[in-house]
Amino acid sequence: MRAAGCALCEASGGPIVFQGAKFRVVRAEEAGYPAFYRLVWSEHVREFSDLDAADRALCMDAVVTIENVVREHLLPAKVNLATLGNVVAHLHWHVIARFHWDPAWPAPVWAASQRAPDPARIQEVDGRRPALEAAIAAALSR
Amino acid sequence: MRAAGCALCEASGGPIVFQGAKFRVVRAEEAGYPAFYRLVWSEHVREFSDLDAADRALCMDAVVTIENVVREHLLPAKVNLATLGNVVAHLHWHVIARFHWDPAWPAPVWAASQRAPDPARIQEVDGRRPALEAAIAAALSR
Repeated sequence: MRAAGCALCEASGGPIVFQGAKFRVVRAEEAGYPAFYRLVWSEHVREFSDLDAADRALCMDAVVTIENVVREHLLPAKVNLATLGNVVAHLHWHVIARFHWDPAWPAPVWAASQRAPDPARIQEVDGRRPALEAAIAAALSR
Repeated sequence: MRAAGCALCEASGGPIVFQGAKFRVVRAEEAGYPAFYRLVWSEHVREFSDLDAADRALCMDAVVTIENVVREHLLPAKVNLATLGNVVAHLHWHVIARFHWDPAWPAPVWAASQRAPDPARIQEVDGRRPALEAAIAAALSR
């Protein structure tokens, strides 16, 4: 089931970290947020509640797996989870590692930035990302 | 387990729509968003992934129940789900009915408002709220 004109039916939405049968995980590449991932459901489903119970469980187990790997590798100040989809109404979950130094902290990433991105801190996370993403892929492959 | 100084350990967080053994549902009372609910976990838990698998399933089943009742009663343009907790790090899930006329649409509610609240539309939702909230409580009591 693909929807014409849907950005997440027509493209991955970012570099692919994991490709599964029912969903993929991509890096969101949002400036200032070096560990921002999206779980994108493969089928064009609008609301989380459109999934049946088994698929909802599969989806949230994967979201929690990503969260756990992010926590273990990066020790973020907080993890933020959200499914919004007001603009691209194709089910996707944001999994965002938040840090005290990130642009919008402690506000949501969608609020106004309160400070400039911190290149040194971002570079540090960038350095940990290959191992982080390999661990996400390995955990989701189990 | 209560944490000193935690806003959601010390107060409900809004008018209580449903009180269960492990969580409550409160109306968020955010101006311009007349159907904005929060599921607040009773124990002071920081991250969603701090819950065990059974509690995560219980929590998300309740979130989906709220979402389904909101969809049925209000036909929102979209439902937004999120757990952030950067300021109040006590597990709570936002369940937000979004409408084309609401202040931030189509941006997340945490972004800048793009228009003033619409009193007539809000009043219409307000009128449906007693039935909506009774249905949420009934569905969560099953």
